[in-house]
Amino acid sequence: MSKIELSKIDTRAPKDLDKKEIKEKTEKMLIELDELQNLLFAEGKHSVLVVIQGMDGSGKDGVIRNVLGNMNPQGVSVRSYKAPTPEELSHDFLWRIHHYAPPKGMIQIFNRSHYEDILVTRVHKWCDDETANKRMEAINDFEKLLQKHNSTHILKIYLHVSPEEQHERLSERMKDPTKMWKYNEKDFEEAKLWDVYMGMYEDCFNNCNTPPWTIVPADQNWYKEYIIASKLQELLKGLDMQFPGLKK
Amino acid sequence: MSKIELSKIDTRAPKDLDKKEIKEKTEKMLIELDELQNLLFAEGKHSVLVVIQGMDGSGKDGVIRNVLGNMNPQGVSVRSYKAPTPEELSHDFLWRIHHYAPPKGMIQIFNRSHYEDILVTRVHKWCDDETANKRMEAINDFEKLLQKHNSTHILKIYLHVSPEEQHERLSERMKDPTKMWKYNEKDFEEAKLWDVYMGMYEDCFNNCNTPPWTIVPADQNWYKEYIIASKLQELLKGLDMQFPGLKK
Repeated sequence: MSKIELSKIDTRAPKDLDKKEIKEKTEKMLIELDELQNLLFAEGKHSVLVVIQGMDGSGKDGVIRNVLGNMNPQGVSVRSYKAPTPEELSHDFLWRIHHYAPPKGMIQIFNRSHYEDILVTRVHKWCDDETANKRMEAINDFEKLLQKHNSTHILKIYLHVSPEEQHERLSERMKDPTKMWKYNEKDFEEAKLWDVYMGMYEDCFNNCNTPPWTIVPADQNWYKEYIIASKLQELLKGLDMQFPGLKK
Repeated sequence: MSKIELSKIDTRAPKDLDKKEIKEKTEKMLIELDELQNLLFAEGKHSVLVVIQGMDGSGKDGVIRNVLGNMNPQGVSVRSYKAPTPEELSHDFLWRIHHYAPPKGMIQIFNRSHYEDILVTRVHKWCDDETANKRMEAINDFEKLLQKHNSTHILKIYLHVSPEEQHERLSERMKDPTKMWKYNEKDFEEAKLWDVYMGMYEDCFNNCNTPPWTIVPADQNWYKEYIIASKLQELLKGLDMQFPGLKK
């Protein structure tokens, strides 16, 4: 498998795409996704884990709201990971993750995830390279456990924005009264570490790739939503699910 | 407060209502609910607990899917309570409930709830009247704790269906291949205990009424959804919320 280099991947949709057409396709897929999720729940054989990573302002919340939020909340659960609590830190780094692994029939969404333990922590040197390498091994083993022992299908999504687009979105939070609650001045400090972050992300994508990451051009919401809906639809369709008959 | 007698409350919409008009009103409210929920999340001062109770086939899943499922799943969480596990039974009956009380900013939905501990358990005489009375006191104290110590606003919904409508819906589950997974032959056995159930529900409504229960005529989905959307909207609007300004 060739190595991922983020700087060589476009953050925008291909120029020849028709926005209106793509949006219509997404709308149709969202209806189909709702039906597929219902079938996943009814059949109760598989589970799905959607891991969403991306820089501040890359649109993680929007994906959850507009794509994944369209399904039945009874079968879709969201866990947002923030800085670990003292109790969480007193355990191994996967302890707080494992508890939220999806049971059969469910779609679990991680807004940030165990990957932060080899991303933000590395950028700030709270975690050295040796520890990071050990963590990547542990992550691979952990994901294998979910895949092999609970039919969990994992979709890893990286929202790929440009630094320019990020700057615009973070600035917007300072101006729009309905977005100010999201503003954090530290985000601008973090943004200065862009290149270091990109290096750590690449390392992560190239070492934790079973399944491989989906790098989603994320400067335009309509394209980002289309790609993610497509990927999830492809995954669910591939499960060859059926409604169970009457219990005996 | 006058006592609730379920047999005197209609399970259908008032005859003079226009279904199409009501459905349009509901659609509008769903958009407003989505905005109000976003504000609740952004402000982070209040939390909301929606308790949904009702006989089998009364449409609990449908309410979650069609009314509550329209909001952002990042701020709306669903917990379905089934028969307690051995671990849960080794604790007090509110232990498994308390853990899922909503944090500030969140809407938590209970599909069945702690009320089962004074409903199904009483019907089957797993819980005697004395224990039931003590449990009702404990429930009142518990809900007061959430209300006073975490700004939790509680909306208690009873889906009021007629036994005829229930029978039709349960029978449908045996015929429709996409619904067979919901079929449980025990549901028909439970349905025979209708009058006993109604008595226990009335006792519950009359003793655990801060806030009072909303009895929702639930034979017609369009009317049920309208009433629930209205009640939730009224609750959220009453909180007088505002977007926070920039953090300092």
